[in-house]
Amino acid sequence: MMSTMDLFLQQSQAAFVQYRKVSGSSKAIFLDAIAAEIEALGQPLIAKAMEETNLPEARLVGERGRTCNQLRQFAALVKEGSWVDARVDTALPDRAPLPKPDIRKMMIPLGPVVVFGASNFPFAYSTAGVDTASALAAGCSVVLKAHPAHPVTSEMVAGAIARAIDKTCMPRHVFQHVQDSSFEAGKALVQHPLTKAVSFTGSFSGGKALYDYATQRPEPIPVFAEMGSINPVIILPGALQARSEKVAEQYAASITQGVGQFCTNPGLMLSVQSPGLEKFKRELSERMIAIAPGTMLHPGIANNYTKNRTKALAQKGVSLLAESTEKQKENQASATLATVSGNDFINNPNLVEEVFGPYSLLVTAKTIDELKVAIEKIPGQLTATIIGEEDDLKAHADMIELVMERAGRVIINGVPTGVEVCPSMQHGGPFPATTDSRFTSVGTDAIKRFVRPVAFQNFPNVLLPEELKEENPLGIWRLYNGEFKK
Amino acid sequence: MMSTMDLFLQQSQAAFVQYRKVSGSSKAIFLDAIAAEIEALGQPLIAKAMEETNLPEARLVGERGRTCNQLRQFAALVKEGSWVDARVDTALPDRAPLPKPDIRKMMIPLGPVVVFGASNFPFAYSTAGVDTASALAAGCSVVLKAHPAHPVTSEMVAGAIARAIDKTCMPRHVFQHVQDSSFEAGKALVQHPLTKAVSFTGSFSGGKALYDYATQRPEPIPVFAEMGSINPVIILPGALQARSEKVAEQYAASITQGVGQFCTNPGLMLSVQSPGLEKFKRELSERMIAIAPGTMLHPGIANNYTKNRTKALAQKGVSLLAESTEKQKENQASATLATVSGNDFINNPNLVEEVFGPYSLLVTAKTIDELKVAIEKIPGQLTATIIGEEDDLKAHADMIELVMERAGRVIINGVPTGVEVCPSMQHGGPFPATTDSRFTSVGTDAIKRFVRPVAFQNFPNVLLPEELKEENPLGIWRLYNGEFKK
Repeated sequence: MMSTMDLFLQQSQAAFVQYRKVSGSSKAIFLDAIAAEIEALGQPLIAKAMEETNLPEARLVGERGRTCNQLRQFAALVKEGSWVDARVDTALPDRAPLPKPDIRKMMIPLGPVVVFGASNFPFAYSTAGVDTASALAAGCSVVLKAHPAHPVTSEMVAGAIARAIDKTCMPRHVFQHVQDSSFEAGKALVQHPLTKAVSFTGSFSGGKALYDYATQRPEPIPVFAEMGSINPVIILPGALQARSEKVAEQYAASITQGVGQFCTNPGLMLSVQSPGLEKFKRELSERMIAIAPGTMLHPGIANNYTKNRTKALAQKGVSLLAESTEKQKENQASATLATVSGNDFINNPNLVEEVFGPYSLLVTAKTIDELKVAIEKIPGQLTATIIGEEDDLKAHADMIELVMERAGRVIINGVPTGVEVCPSMQHGGPFPATTDSRFTSVGTDAIKRFVRPVAFQNFPNVLLPEELKEENPLGIWRLYNGEFKK
Repeated sequence: MMSTMDLFLQQSQAAFVQYRKVSGSSKAIFLDAIAAEIEALGQPLIAKAMEETNLPEARLVGERGRTCNQLRQFAALVKEGSWVDARVDTALPDRAPLPKPDIRKMMIPLGPVVVFGASNFPFAYSTAGVDTASALAAGCSVVLKAHPAHPVTSEMVAGAIARAIDKTCMPRHVFQHVQDSSFEAGKALVQHPLTKAVSFTGSFSGGKALYDYATQRPEPIPVFAEMGSINPVIILPGALQARSEKVAEQYAASITQGVGQFCTNPGLMLSVQSPGLEKFKRELSERMIAIAPGTMLHPGIANNYTKNRTKALAQKGVSLLAESTEKQKENQASATLATVSGNDFINNPNLVEEVFGPYSLLVTAKTIDELKVAIEKIPGQLTATIIGEEDDLKAHADMIELVMERAGRVIINGVPTGVEVCPSMQHGGPFPATTDSRFTSVGTDAIKRFVRPVAFQNFPNVLLPEELKEENPLGIWRLYNGEFKK
């Protein structure tokens, strides 16, 4: 196995040595060309993805748009160029007691990156998804391990990338596509000495295994594994009094959107006993039972849903509140709402485990204090949401602190599903949501995962990278002698 | 052991919960106060450090100045405030098909940080050194494990910090001083569930052990271990022809400065056979033999120097070129210059191991191509230096690429010793120089080690942190709807 994967990494390293010298504007042309080639695949790509993932057409068309948009955002980022975080401190030859040398710093790419495609986003987190786009934007080469749930879709997108490589004269092996679903293939890719970073979206067991391989190599490397989340939603009493029906409507949709197959799916809601909460339970239940079961991405995911749902419902004190009235067929998942007391939740760590699918658990605390204790039992999350009236929120500012401690994104009066692609997005949270809370896998800052800073001391101007030359030929933002300027 | 350390971490967490809410300007007052309190310790601190470390007065006075300067640089950084890397993307409620929510992002502190003091910098990398300063600047609490080689110096500096805490009304346990040199104490601190990051400067075996504990915890945490470096210096032929005497003078001083006890000490020089090189060898040797042996920090370091030097000199093809004429006394180290052929170097991985002290190995390659192969055998380094005339450098631009791949800082026509404290400094390099090449342990960017980003979605303005409020009350630089502005 190592020998097959060795060829991929040798080729990737050879391409990297060429590609890292490519200018930002040329990388932008390349990334834009990938987007155009994906669009040029037209309806056949959508049709194949529908067949392989069971996802509906509108969703896949939207996801393709998001994927091309991501590629173009990274193209614009590297074309503009300021993302390299340049710092310039010029020499002070007369400083006493010692002269100060000229020092300049910028980000450079890490090297070949191994990307694992995800099953739940066949475009946006797969072959030409955000990991590939950000690694290529950074100047890294990519070895992409296709997700076995949509091999043909992946092959079609890989073909689009290959054509973009060709048309824009990039090194041939800057992107390579590996179709090998074996456990050993993934392990060999992560353990290969030329691999410099790994990115993964999927289960906790999968992500943690890759993390362990990577950190236990002779030369440890970073792993960006996004491993799921239950995305707690704290509902303050005032909001339920004021607008329980609106919240029920929002959440019935958010829990069941895409058959619950989102890493930001709200799998846990927490509130405090009140007449408003009873009303909310009824309203949410009414909506949940009316939602028809949906077909999941593949039989493995559907089986896991059934198994994990059964396990969750069997926990002490957990009762079923509502489920789809329509009976589920093969590979389908019924929308499910369960409930448990604050006390039973606090004492059972199994209840913070993810049930990937259209499932949510509503925790009813006796008091606000019990609610806070319950929140403290929740491990690291991608997101946390607070639903509350402004007075409620001001009165419980400590609740914001409490959720901020354990999440990468905090939402007020919204739903966690729907991850905007923009510079301010943080998609990543404390372990076990991800293996590295200091980075994001959505938005332009995702590029930061694949670079490291290098300082250039006492370089003749002619030998400096363009980004650091005294005359700032690229016109980028730099911290120049302590002052931000272009 | 865990129970003793548990108290430290419980107190640290309690202090963190208070301290993370402290404003940048208040943190600045605190950091400035630490610097003032250290200065107020006056000559007795210097005298005690001289006694405990064998370092000369001028060096320690300089290092104290650097330490206070670092504290004040971090104070200025957090007072100004732009370091939080704020991004604002305002809402587009009318966007089709879906409205865009308001999202804002900034860095927040990770939590309690465990810092291990270093032996070779009793001030700048110890109790109130750059790790403590940057963690406190970030808003983290610190548990400092004093280095056993200078316990009283460390206690005095810890006292200064305690007085600064008192005078500026900071939470009492925001900084705690642990005097326990046992292996188990360090392990317990790293493994404690409340510890959120670790920083260490020292040996490879020490740093790697901490890295393994941290990454194998149930909840892995980042470790910033700086583990030594041999700081290769590539000397191109033209430079030796033009100015071999000047280079010999610079390097005799750099190799032996502070008895070679710097992580940036040039332990490896590489060049190509030439008459200029023969002249350089004679000139460097003449200077090295004239340098008197120096007393090392403590007997353990002196014994290791003797042992590692003996091992290095016993390797195949290695011969002694020069050593201090004056005989070394107890705890002293003789300046040592050894030499080896390119071929023997290429085939012996032992020759890239660090000999901590005033030792350097000169590799003589037959050709430029052999020199490049030799460079490829060098693992990750803090620095790499190229000595060359401008024409030489232009002709060997690929050499710059080659060293950039394996170093955090590349120096042209200088020495690696002397690490400037400024925003453009990168002190950190690929493994095994450090455990995380993406961060620096010198300069203001060192603060980035102890933070993670959090996105705030759809927050009422009044509930946003000051850094993210619409009106930008702190007047910091932000990426606002894609545009950098104040």
